[in-house]
Amino acid sequence: METYDENLQRLESSLETEDAAGAESLLDGILPEESSLLVDRLSESDREKLVCLLPPESAAALIKGMVEAQAIDILDGIDPGTAASILGELDSDTAADFLGELESSEAEAILQRMEPEEAADARVLLTFDEDTAGGLMKTEYLAYSHNSTVGDIVEDLRLNAETYSDFDVQYAYLVDESKKLVGVLRLRDLLLSSYNTKVAQIMIPNPVSVLHSVTQEELAKQFSQKQYIGMPVVDEVGRLLGIALRKSVRAATAEAVAEDFLKVSGLGGKEELRSMPLHLRSRRRLSWLSINILLNVIAASVIALYQDTLAQVIALAVFLPIISDMSGCSGSQAVAVSIRELTLGLVRPTELIRVLFKEMALGLVNGLALGILISGVAILWKGNPWLGLVVGGALMVNTVVAVCLGGLIPLVLKRFNMDPALASGPILTTVTDMCGFFLVLSMATFLLPMLV
Amino acid sequence: METYDENLQRLESSLETEDAAGAESLLDGILPEESSLLVDRLSESDREKLVCLLPPESAAALIKGMVEAQAIDILDGIDPGTAASILGELDSDTAADFLGELESSEAEAILQRMEPEEAADARVLLTFDEDTAGGLMKTEYLAYSHNSTVGDIVEDLRLNAETYSDFDVQYAYLVDESKKLVGVLRLRDLLLSSYNTKVAQIMIPNPVSVLHSVTQEELAKQFSQKQYIGMPVVDEVGRLLGIALRKSVRAATAEAVAEDFLKVSGLGGKEELRSMPLHLRSRRRLSWLSINILLNVIAASVIALYQDTLAQVIALAVFLPIISDMSGCSGSQAVAVSIRELTLGLVRPTELIRVLFKEMALGLVNGLALGILISGVAILWKGNPWLGLVVGGALMVNTVVAVCLGGLIPLVLKRFNMDPALASGPILTTVTDMCGFFLVLSMATFLLPMLV
Repeated sequence: METYDENLQRLESSLETEDAAGAESLLDGILPEESSLLVDRLSESDREKLVCLLPPESAAALIKGMVEAQAIDILDGIDPGTAASILGELDSDTAADFLGELESSEAEAILQRMEPEEAADARVLLTFDEDTAGGLMKTEYLAYSHNSTVGDIVEDLRLNAETYSDFDVQYAYLVDESKKLVGVLRLRDLLLSSYNTKVAQIMIPNPVSVLHSVTQEELAKQFSQKQYIGMPVVDEVGRLLGIALRKSVRAATAEAVAEDFLKVSGLGGKEELRSMPLHLRSRRRLSWLSINILLNVIAASVIALYQDTLAQVIALAVFLPIISDMSGCSGSQAVAVSIRELTLGLVRPTELIRVLFKEMALGLVNGLALGILISGVAILWKGNPWLGLVVGGALMVNTVVAVCLGGLIPLVLKRFNMDPALASGPILTTVTDMCGFFLVLSMATFLLPMLV
Repeated sequence: METYDENLQRLESSLETEDAAGAESLLDGILPEESSLLVDRLSESDREKLVCLLPPESAAALIKGMVEAQAIDILDGIDPGTAASILGELDSDTAADFLGELESSEAEAILQRMEPEEAADARVLLTFDEDTAGGLMKTEYLAYSHNSTVGDIVEDLRLNAETYSDFDVQYAYLVDESKKLVGVLRLRDLLLSSYNTKVAQIMIPNPVSVLHSVTQEELAKQFSQKQYIGMPVVDEVGRLLGIALRKSVRAATAEAVAEDFLKVSGLGGKEELRSMPLHLRSRRRLSWLSINILLNVIAASVIALYQDTLAQVIALAVFLPIISDMSGCSGSQAVAVSIRELTLGLVRPTELIRVLFKEMALGLVNGLALGILISGVAILWKGNPWLGLVVGGALMVNTVVAVCLGGLIPLVLKRFNMDPALASGPILTTVTDMCGFFLVLSMATFLLPMLV
């Protein structure tokens, strides 16, 4: 770990003296995860300086390994010409993703400085939604006329071996005169055929393809069921637009899962790094907290309605936060099960009745267990079985309410095309808090003579 | 959606009449995600019946698409001979994963009925930890002697094209007499060489490889930085054991992320499906809730110590659950940021001081904002600025405590090799609850004359 501090110092001094070779050899000599950490710890201006100092290829590798928000900040901050040469080193889809996240004027400035062909590819990719097959596809792929022979293709592969070595493909795509996709050729089948064989004879005809507007979710499902490494993406009339690679889809799916985590945790799905400026971190977190405090005040206002009861049975105040927290926990479990089942396709958003009955049964069992536990605590503490009945009964009923709501809310949100990960938590806790407080305090008011 | 009910009925009646062809054609005719849903809705015994009825290859595809817990239940329930023929259709690593999850006596019964070669492969894979390179690797790969010629290999590829078509590889691995890995050959380079070339001339010598004990996390990092589709796995002396594919590592990583979600949500990292038996679902959820209720009682006992103060300023009871919930929310955000930064390698578990300062600064800003908000509510409601000072001050201080703790707990747990996703939440809320209650009530006790 001492080397880490040394490395950071060396990197910073390389930047000060504009020693590109020194910075590059330092970053080359350490593990990739160590270099992410080092770069994260540089100041924003030093990060930009580093990216400009490195040769475009190394800068591109560095940018690609970063958290997206950090990469965007850098591309936004540096000279458009430098940004253009860095983006030129990236795959078409990665470059387009970055361009799509930038301000449109900034993106335009960079596009104008990119090589015309690369810029044209990027402009096409930018017209597609980021989470569709069109937005995920790459434009680097092998395509040949369906009239070619094996010899033609082997010849071309030999001539352009250098260029194609970046292509990461096992297939060549065969198109007709109007660029319509008519077949797929496994490159290794070239090995097993004579040079004058027509590729039409050894190609897989009528290959599987997807329309550019197919969603990332749908694409992920197709890949999970089939062995393909890539899937050709076509337009409405069947013309080949690009190839959506399994790995791009996987990466996009992993990003979506990470976003869900950041949403459930109250970060609004945005990546926060502690190296970001305080005002940004604070504002993002507060935007969620300020909604939440409002919801909390609404829920707690139920307590305010029963101040007289509370004043007479002050012990209830001890149990209110417990009921609130426990109902929240039970409900969150049900939310998680629903979100997982939705993701896995094991529940349809319309199956409210099924989920309701499944959760109600579970809520009765768990509510009974938790209710008995908490009423035991109340009786042991105050020696009053009626107090036990009030808090135990309220927790039992509220557990049923919480698991039913927790199970249903994600389905309902999904049905209305809202994001279950973002909204389920706050809706759940507000309603269960209100209900829990009401149950305890109204039962206590009703049984007041037995409690005082 | 009507077809769904029809399909379920058709599937159930195929099972009743043991109509294998009917069941198979039904499942073949619908989308994979629809078949998962149908199979989930069958009774446990019908699921087993279906798997036994289908030809092993279709059964294997079905099993592979299921949630692991469900697949294991089936393999556990059916005749070991049938299970053996199904596992024989799966990739070596998938088969070994399933075997590893079964009771050892059951796994042994199945292994004895598998083909000797496949069983031997599975036994080797079973000796490795599931989340190491050894546990993730496949034993289906192409290996040749480093003395071969291009012609030898092309000949072998041609002869065994059928077998190799399942292999999903672009590389052949070259080994010396003692099975030590000495080179890697890109299959497409075979295209560009004459038949009598020695492969040693065109292979990539000293290829990157990983030791079988390297963790899945480490492997994922290596793949994220390099383009390889697979990475050879070797033993301590460099002998080739198998190939860890990028996609296996990705799948394992996605599973780990899903597990984290299930842990954070209080489901102990276990997959719950609503088609599972109630007693199992209830017991799993309760095991977490019962710990949580205990922690809640401990936290709330702080309130019990201040009953006299509460009795005199009953309004405080309204604010206690708000302070508890809001501190929990602020703390969870910090927990999420730490877990993400740990995952991304952007914080080291030893950097407690850095995280502490970063979170403290943010806690002061957000605490001030939230404190002012809540004290505004208190003053508007009761017209007593002292009440505002008590609840606002307590929330402010407790926000600082919550974000600092939330930021630090995952690092400390990680350092002691404990699971941040599982334990951070309960530890955080218990401590912040106790601290929050203490702050409000001790300040109120001190300022009691101004509050009544």
